Amino acid sequence: MQKLKCTVSYDGTHFSGSQIQPNKRTVQAEMEKAMTKMHKGKQVQIYFSGRTDAGVHAKAQVFHFETEMNIPPESWKKALNAVLPKDIHVKGIEPAPANFHAQFDAIEKEYRYFVFNCKERNVFKRNYAYYYPFDVDIKKIQVACSLFEGTHDFTSFCSARTAVKGGKVRTLYEVSCKKHEDEIVFILRGNGFLYNMVRIIVGVLLDVGSGKIDLPEIEEMFRKKDRTFAGKTLPPEGLFLWKVKYENEAGKQRGNA
Amino acid sequence: MQKLKCTVSYDGTHFSGSQIQPNKRTVQAEMEKAMTKMHKGKQVQIYFSGRTDAGVHAKAQVFHFETEMNIPPESWKKALNAVLPKDIHVKGIEPAPANFHAQFDAIEKEYRYFVFNCKERNVFKRNYAYYYPFDVDIKKIQVACSLFEGTHDFTSFCSARTAVKGGKVRTLYEVSCKKHEDEIVFILRGNGFLYNMVRIIVGVLLDVGSGKIDLPEIEEMFRKKDRTFAGKTLPPEGLFLWKVKYENEAGKQRGNA
Repeated sequence: MQKLKCTVSYDGTHFSGSQIQPNKRTVQAEMEKAMTKMHKGKQVQIYFSGRTDAGVHAKAQVFHFETEMNIPPESWKKALNAVLPKDIHVKGIEPAPANFHAQFDAIEKEYRYFVFNCKERNVFKRNYAYYYPFDVDIKKIQVACSLFEGTHDFTSFCSARTAVKGGKVRTLYEVSCKKHEDEIVFILRGNGFLYNMVRIIVGVLLDVGSGKIDLPEIEEMFRKKDRTFAGKTLPPEGLFLWKVKYENEAGKQRGNA
Repeated sequence: MQKLKCTVSYDGTHFSGSQIQPNKRTVQAEMEKAMTKMHKGKQVQIYFSGRTDAGVHAKAQVFHFETEMNIPPESWKKALNAVLPKDIHVKGIEPAPANFHAQFDAIEKEYRYFVFNCKERNVFKRNYAYYYPFDVDIKKIQVACSLFEGTHDFTSFCSARTAVKGGKVRTLYEVSCKKHEDEIVFILRGNGFLYNMVRIIVGVLLDVGSGKIDLPEIEEMFRKKDRTFAGKTLPPEGLFLWKVKYENEAGKQRGNA
């Protein structure tokens, strides 16, 4: 039995999220279907670094699986891409230690949220950015970003339905915002993210940028520990799981060589 | 009766082309459905500047129609966008002279063809660029581009099924090629384009760039006046109708003011 770590990108538009669900098109179902084909009908389960919701994209999602097949990594990649639908693409596959777990061993995740900030709609961006036609003060947003960095209890900034063991304290290493032409991009890096956390935080940041709320209100939101104080959850189309980092990342190149 | 000129963009991915066809989802059918809604059930026909094929996009396609409704242009735009599906967007609408015709009055069209030139596939580009992972010599392509500029008989560079009155001589004002990071963009501007013409010309240009054919062979293709000598037709996803120009364009601003 060999364990493999696989990096995939997917366009979330036509998926009901990553996680398998009965009668829905999901990334996991498509991926396991491809695996089953390669294993001549034998079912193979995959384990993602974490879930992504319906409509959410992944530039580099990671999963692991176990196999008895002895195929070089480059051939795995080719074979899987040949049977996968066009909205999923295997970027890389490599051997992993027997005790590797894509979810539990992840030490950092990066999400990016894209906002299309233009009066006129753009049909080509509709599935890949949140359309937000209002004027925003980027400098003010950047100041607000810094309030989210560091270690905080994010109870107010995750779905009230979040079921999580061990509390809602997380550490964000980076919360930043840049605007280039019509596009605003938010970058969030942290040791873990709660359900809907990025979409709620970016919603609050846009509320700051449009002048709807002011900086002291963010501190108040943190204090309240109540989801209802933090505005709406932004839609999924702007959200990308950008990168998942593991402790042995430096060893990755060695593993591949 | 009032004549209106309308500029729309559409994402061609989920359309069987612009032109109405029985039991197919087409841009014209969706557009006329929206028109019928606005005219309380009365059918209104629209006339495009020209057809686009299944999967081909439009950044700015133009059509005209006639109406008895007396609504300001800005309200037309809002009302149409409210009922149109999300992959069509009305960018502008303005009064046109009674004798205006979107097809026959067009004096210039611009098409752009996007190529994603990278070893690794990108799921987010799959519907908006042609995936071409091979090395290309851009300078050589640029020289080849100039051979297509000017007035030529384009018989070899259009579908053999092209049915057109008045011959296959067209004038191209610009045929250019630029590369930026992983993206190659071809710009073609001319007084008219034959069926599949852009997709065939760009195919030949990529054949030059990859070293498959050489410059004298392009001159030979022109001479042969035979479609079979000019390589394959590239897929539709890279093609965008970028702009349609009319003689009275300068008067456009006046008409809007």
